[in-house]
Amino acid sequence: MKVLGKTTWAIPGGHIPLHSTGHEPEFTSRDELCLLNTSDQEANIEITIFYVDREPVGPYRLKVQARRVRHIRFNDLINPEAILLDTDYASVIESDVPIVVQFSRLDSSRAENSSLITMAFPGS
Amino acid sequence: MKVLGKTTWAIPGGHIPLHSTGHEPEFTSRDELCLLNTSDQEANIEITIFYVDREPVGPYRLKVQARRVRHIRFNDLINPEAILLDTDYASVIESDVPIVVQFSRLDSSRAENSSLITMAFPGS
Amino acid sequence: MKVLGKTTWAIPGGHIPLHSTGHEPEFTSRDELCLLNTSDQEANIEITIFYVDREPVGPYRLKVQARRVRHIRFNDLINPEAILLDTDYASVIESDVPIVVQFSRLDSSRAENSSLITMAFPGS
Amino acid sequence: MKVLGKTTWAIPGGHIPLHSTGHEPEFTSRDELCLLNTSDQEANIEITIFYVDREPVGPYRLKVQARRVRHIRFNDLINPEAILLDTDYASVIESDVPIVVQFSRLDSSRAENSSLITMAFPGS
Repeated sequence: MKVLGKTTWAIPGGHIPLHSTGHEPEFTSRDELCLLNTSDQEANIEITIFYVDREPVGPYRLKVQARRVRHIRFNDLINPEAILLDTDYASVIESDVPIVVQFSRLDSSRAENSSLITMAFPGS
Repeated sequence: MKVLGKTTWAIPGGHIPLHSTGHEPEFTSRDELCLLNTSDQEANIEITIFYVDREPVGPYRLKVQARRVRHIRFNDLINPEAILLDTDYASVIESDVPIVVQFSRLDSSRAENSSLITMAFPGS
Repeated sequence: MKVLGKTTWAIPGGHIPLHSTGHEPEFTSRDELCLLNTSDQEANIEITIFYVDREPVGPYRLKVQARRVRHIRFNDLINPEAILLDTDYASVIESDVPIVVQFSRLDSSRAENSSLITMAFPGS
Repeated sequence: MKVLGKTTWAIPGGHIPLHSTGHEPEFTSRDELCLLNTSDQEANIEITIFYVDREPVGPYRLKVQARRVRHIRFNDLINPEAILLDTDYASVIESDVPIVVQFSRLDSSRAENSSLITMAFPGS
């Protein structure tokens, strides 16, 4: 299979909902990153988080093995520091091999779920 | 009409919700693939499913006739094997003629629906 | 302002929900097309509807004036024929001047709304 | 970090829901613009609002500082004039440095939230 994707992606609309209803972790409100590596090499990924009123934080480092997908909750990115709930942020994802990136959110603030998904913006 | 689309598409964010409420099949939770073939030739399509912790599975083969659309639930892809519910996966869709691909989800886990849609990522 | 957009767009995932709850027309379930014409010329638009099991139907003709937006419910496209509810379809939108196209859905099948939006796929 | 994005973006599908339920501002129905400036220069941004039946209004001016994200509710754009609720509109966003733009909506018309997100359409 041909290698698919780009090495830089951006997601301006990050915001992890403050409240959750229902049992964890299935119904925990979250922002989620979906990373697909169709190549035959492990992807070394660096995520940078942009904020409204302070300098960017990162890199958050993670790997996606060859021919694998990985879904990561932003709620679980804690090194170098956790991302605050109920705070506007953006993310830039850089990889050493081409990957494909989607962004999704589950909002269980109220008794029912609200969910959304979008492709990230492909840079280079 | 001019032929529209690409021959390779990717969707990183697959995850069929475990639970459904309401009568089937209208309210069954599902991930769905929407395939449009505007060309005058039948499209022979191969879908490969990527997982978190094992090798990709496929191809799942299907056809979309000339000048037709086809909406397929991932829940219904069973050959070579069914896709597990509540499991992260990604899909790559390859066609021998250009097609246009969207991805949608209906989540009826709780008493109300949550739905989402996005374009797949166009490769080549 | 520079003219923005493309002259051909495709939306594979059409499906108007069968049921609605709440007062009309605000809460009527619908698929909707959002057409932006930033140019200084009226846009003459032709929509073709693709089906699962029969030949495409169209063109549905409409205009968007210069420097105007127009949101059209697929539910309201009735000439040459109405689009059936609860039926899978796709649409191709062609314009004589560049336009920008989004697709959205409001699903009020159950007592709460579910809504989604995506960019259409830009052809040429 | 490399500068990411485009200097012109379009969003055809604007429509701020009329009603809200739940406490403000968290659950206020709104359309929202998510603007990411990864560059080392402040971005000077001009937003133009397109309507169904009158000339475009604008520019609405705002800034996004270097290496910052900013989420703006269309509900809060009031100069030169407020955007009416329950009215179809489109927006074009122009910046003097490349930015990345997403569009989201929270609809709390009924007792539960419905939310959606999409990338804006990238012009030049």
